[in-house]
Amino acid sequence: MSRLGTAYPPDRVSLREVGLRDGLQLVKSWPTTEEKRDWLVREHAAGARHFEVGSFLPASRMPQFADVRAMIEAVGTLDGARSAALALNERGAADALETQVDEIVCVISATEEHSQANMRRSRDDAIGLVRSVARMRDERGHGALINAGIAMAFGCSIAGRVEPDEVLRLAEACMSAGADVIGIADTVGFAGPRQVTRLASGMRVLVGDGGFIIHLHDTRGMGIANASAALDAGCRILDGSLGGLGGCPFAPGATGNVVFEDLVYLCETKGFATGIDLPALAAVRSVAEKAMPGESFYGGIARAGPPATLDWRA
Amino acid sequence: MSRLGTAYPPDRVSLREVGLRDGLQLVKSWPTTEEKRDWLVREHAAGARHFEVGSFLPASRMPQFADVRAMIEAVGTLDGARSAALALNERGAADALETQVDEIVCVISATEEHSQANMRRSRDDAIGLVRSVARMRDERGHGALINAGIAMAFGCSIAGRVEPDEVLRLAEACMSAGADVIGIADTVGFAGPRQVTRLASGMRVLVGDGGFIIHLHDTRGMGIANASAALDAGCRILDGSLGGLGGCPFAPGATGNVVFEDLVYLCETKGFATGIDLPALAAVRSVAEKAMPGESFYGGIARAGPPATLDWRA
Repeated sequence: MSRLGTAYPPDRVSLREVGLRDGLQLVKSWPTTEEKRDWLVREHAAGARHFEVGSFLPASRMPQFADVRAMIEAVGTLDGARSAALALNERGAADALETQVDEIVCVISATEEHSQANMRRSRDDAIGLVRSVARMRDERGHGALINAGIAMAFGCSIAGRVEPDEVLRLAEACMSAGADVIGIADTVGFAGPRQVTRLASGMRVLVGDGGFIIHLHDTRGMGIANASAALDAGCRILDGSLGGLGGCPFAPGATGNVVFEDLVYLCETKGFATGIDLPALAAVRSVAEKAMPGESFYGGIARAGPPATLDWRA
Repeated sequence: MSRLGTAYPPDRVSLREVGLRDGLQLVKSWPTTEEKRDWLVREHAAGARHFEVGSFLPASRMPQFADVRAMIEAVGTLDGARSAALALNERGAADALETQVDEIVCVISATEEHSQANMRRSRDDAIGLVRSVARMRDERGHGALINAGIAMAFGCSIAGRVEPDEVLRLAEACMSAGADVIGIADTVGFAGPRQVTRLASGMRVLVGDGGFIIHLHDTRGMGIANASAALDAGCRILDGSLGGLGGCPFAPGATGNVVFEDLVYLCETKGFATGIDLPALAAVRSVAEKAMPGESFYGGIARAGPPATLDWRA
């Protein structure tokens, strides 16, 4: 099986826990490395396998990710677990390739306006970085997957509307540049299910079931409905964060990523086995809540639990 | 056009605001009649048209609905607005028929166990009440629609699993007994989108697009995803409550009905025009929040607002 198929088998759903990265992007205080490890180990014991754990940036810019190397090591000790981390420039990629990280995430903006405002570079330059990172990876014989995440894919807080064809064009360019998997991100929570159906269907034609990730925010309450639409359209890899942690600097009032626990429940009710134990997963929230008492935690399953009187696994 | 088609045109989506009834079912304190009127008038001004406003029960049992007659009158003064109220026995139905209420809601449990525990009568007796109410209505020449709501239709907190065919059988029996429209209620928030697709598709075959209502609770975070599945399956009438108000005595930890504001947003992103102004609707929450400071209000749209940089109405 290909490197990609081993990481994300196309015949089942894979859920990526991005709480330890996207979930900590904007928080005022964050867990210690020990607390993060506890979160990780307990969530792995509940059945989660894919963990995005940080970003390779100078610690002065993002001190919450200063321990990204330690977190990648921690993931490496857990059976079947896979680590992912962001690299936003060649320096970050070089640092990432010094570790045993399983997946390096590069970010491309869907719009030129957001690319310039957020990354101070063009979209072409961002795709060029994907090409550089893939080459560096190959030169070093490193086994990491390259994940190209397309931010603002369902609408941009600066440029407004984003055409699905434009996202598909960028996705194709990222694949040509060497990306193994493409992330389609509703960075500011603009998407509705119809839009998700359209773009996910296009991605499925482009790269197949197992080749793309849908990354959703629940800013306007559409997160789980959008995830459901993505699954119906053939998407088999979805992101979420414990308790829906994670805001966005471009989305004032944003709540965060789609709630990981509710995403697990959704998948199970739709007949997709996740291998994740829901009560055990919900119990992990206490670790994160204790470490970040100022943050809001969302989600229905943690509050109500799965139905007790019937088999809710479809 | 039929009485039903006038109330709920089959070629568009109708959203029923049940916050003034289901939303107040379990609250510890409730708005005064003046505050309820203010809520109603402002929500009508925002574009809402269908209001469930109470229950015909002895005021000693449900004091929050003692003003149900005044609320029905208040709805009657608003252009194009329609009132609905529950009648749980013949006495209640007789009282309802003394008013200008536009819709009388009778409740049937999907399971015999819940019917006995909740209503202390069999499901057959509950269907018999639908027949009596329809006859009383016709004898009086009253114009009210009869709405038969099937509780626990997606799973029961006592009996567990509920077969879709059993719900369809009950729906058919209610229609034969004289019901004009059938409500399919996920009373305890057990449903997932796949289940909703299945039951809504069956209902569509049985009664057509405009003849059934899906009533959802967001207990486990699936509310909007389930609403999206219902719309996809041809359902054109959905219930919701402002801020997701409304718990359930059979569902500990329940949050309440699906959030009305988010439901409006969902419909609009899917291309169903609701005629409702979202910012004006979200502003009505302040009335309810002020009247019930102890209650939790949910929802994404009230927090983040619709996207400012693009046309989110599909």
